[in-house]
Amino acid sequence: MDIQKGMGHVVGIDVGGTKTMVCIASADGGIKLLEKWETSQHGKPELFFEWLFGELRSLLARTELTLEDISGIGIGFPGVISEGGKLSHAPALPWPEGDILPYIRQYYQGYVKLGNDVNMALLGECWQGSAQGKRHVLLLTVGTGIGGAMLLNGRLYEGAGGAAGEAGYAIVDLPALNGQPLSGDAFGPLESVTSGTGIGDHAKAYFEGKSVSGSDSIGAPQVLQGAIAGDPDYLAIMEKPLQHMAAFIGSATSLLNPELVLLGGGVADSGDYYVKEIVERVPAFTPFRVDIRKAGLGNKAGAIGAAAAAARIFE
Amino acid sequence: MDIQKGMGHVVGIDVGGTKTMVCIASADGGIKLLEKWETSQHGKPELFFEWLFGELRSLLARTELTLEDISGIGIGFPGVISEGGKLSHAPALPWPEGDILPYIRQYYQGYVKLGNDVNMALLGECWQGSAQGKRHVLLLTVGTGIGGAMLLNGRLYEGAGGAAGEAGYAIVDLPALNGQPLSGDAFGPLESVTSGTGIGDHAKAYFEGKSVSGSDSIGAPQVLQGAIAGDPDYLAIMEKPLQHMAAFIGSATSLLNPELVLLGGGVADSGDYYVKEIVERVPAFTPFRVDIRKAGLGNKAGAIGAAAAAARIFE
Repeated sequence: MDIQKGMGHVVGIDVGGTKTMVCIASADGGIKLLEKWETSQHGKPELFFEWLFGELRSLLARTELTLEDISGIGIGFPGVISEGGKLSHAPALPWPEGDILPYIRQYYQGYVKLGNDVNMALLGECWQGSAQGKRHVLLLTVGTGIGGAMLLNGRLYEGAGGAAGEAGYAIVDLPALNGQPLSGDAFGPLESVTSGTGIGDHAKAYFEGKSVSGSDSIGAPQVLQGAIAGDPDYLAIMEKPLQHMAAFIGSATSLLNPELVLLGGGVADSGDYYVKEIVERVPAFTPFRVDIRKAGLGNKAGAIGAAAAAARIFE
Repeated sequence: MDIQKGMGHVVGIDVGGTKTMVCIASADGGIKLLEKWETSQHGKPELFFEWLFGELRSLLARTELTLEDISGIGIGFPGVISEGGKLSHAPALPWPEGDILPYIRQYYQGYVKLGNDVNMALLGECWQGSAQGKRHVLLLTVGTGIGGAMLLNGRLYEGAGGAAGEAGYAIVDLPALNGQPLSGDAFGPLESVTSGTGIGDHAKAYFEGKSVSGSDSIGAPQVLQGAIAGDPDYLAIMEKPLQHMAAFIGSATSLLNPELVLLGGGVADSGDYYVKEIVERVPAFTPFRVDIRKAGLGNKAGAIGAAAAAARIFE
């Protein structure tokens, strides 16, 4: 571990397809600044990082810091980052697959940690959010898709190829696969049932089955709103996504014996309904006890966690 | 990490309900002695450890060592060992639940590592067996029941309560649960389909369905033998256990992104048939690549791995 751990300032950056969030923090955990930008110039990675470091310099100037004062930069991407720093599987970023670090080295020579955005969000929750003080945590994000990340033995677990946490490919209903092999280019089986996209698709099919018109525009937010209001149709639609997610969390609890499962993302954030339902359902699917909570930092978790990675807190 | 790592000699002990295996090794990996005893006097833990350390002293004398020369002892148990050293869930050992270390401290004051026997077997494979040099490994043992253990980031992962690896409770066929909650006192859903016991049960039901008499005595060994010989009945019986196990390994690969999955236990050991079938089936159940191999050390893995734990190799 670096001798500078806990000293100086760090920068965390959460790169999204449309928004990029930046966090400047002292390495001992004080958040100095948190800012969200429209992601610009990302047709090519060299242009994106030129833009990013220009913005970052201006931002640092506001806190009377320069890049030279920064002891580390963490950057989360919506894709897989291999141990060697290669970005892949990032459909939200129209860049070629390849090494990211050389672009950053044009502007910054200090410690750099690149990672997956969900992994970074988990570190944010462990550093400043709902998982502080925990050593064995599974984060599941339930949004457009399904994301997953793990803190095990107090350290981020990224897997052999940096791809750990792909919970969306979990199989809890083998007969439903109908013998079709999974494809890495499509939603995984758990994802297609339990994600916000899956919930919306299921709602459309449900109302079409009832010959209700206008159901084409129904999405997960409306389903969740209806379920929270106690509408029997929307409660029925949520049954399968909730059961599949609870069965997966039960299975993951038996395998990983975590102390805490955090639920984040748009579906989990919509009031207390979703998390409460999951908490009630999981004990039927594992003999092991586990706490289940809503992630606390919302969309700030990624940038804050990237700052934690820059401070090398969870190594 | 202990300054003595890699120095001196260590002892690894694999405690089973009927057999206890002991390994004396140099801490840098040389196996000096491997011995199997009938487990005696285990009605009470104090009697068991009195017997065990008596036998161990005699064994050490044969190598011209005494307990004072031993820098660490690792012991694997067929149960859950909590972080604090409490043994529970060990039906093969008719002892009360409770702390194990005080019994050992009567005879030995050095470094002691207690753990689950499957976890120890994994360390054995990583130290001297099929997983040498690997950092991210999932071991599944397919025998009377299903066991699991994980090496993650090069370290043994035991979970928040020491219970990690309970793959047998994984759910890959939610509809088959019929709404029944899982019980910690019974086989888990994956276990009841894929274990040797499950394979035997399935064979009995299969032949009863065909009104074949004498099927009561059919067990997994006969089913595997029949499948290896290409008998259509036995191949049909193996179909579900193989598909469920492959689906689980696929899901676990997506979640954990291990570099290697090891298959051990009696079912996996029966020729190359089982492992070959699993290797062929898993790619349909995950978009991620993973090596799958047979565990190499057989029933010696636990004692050898306990010695590795005593040498603190994978901390």
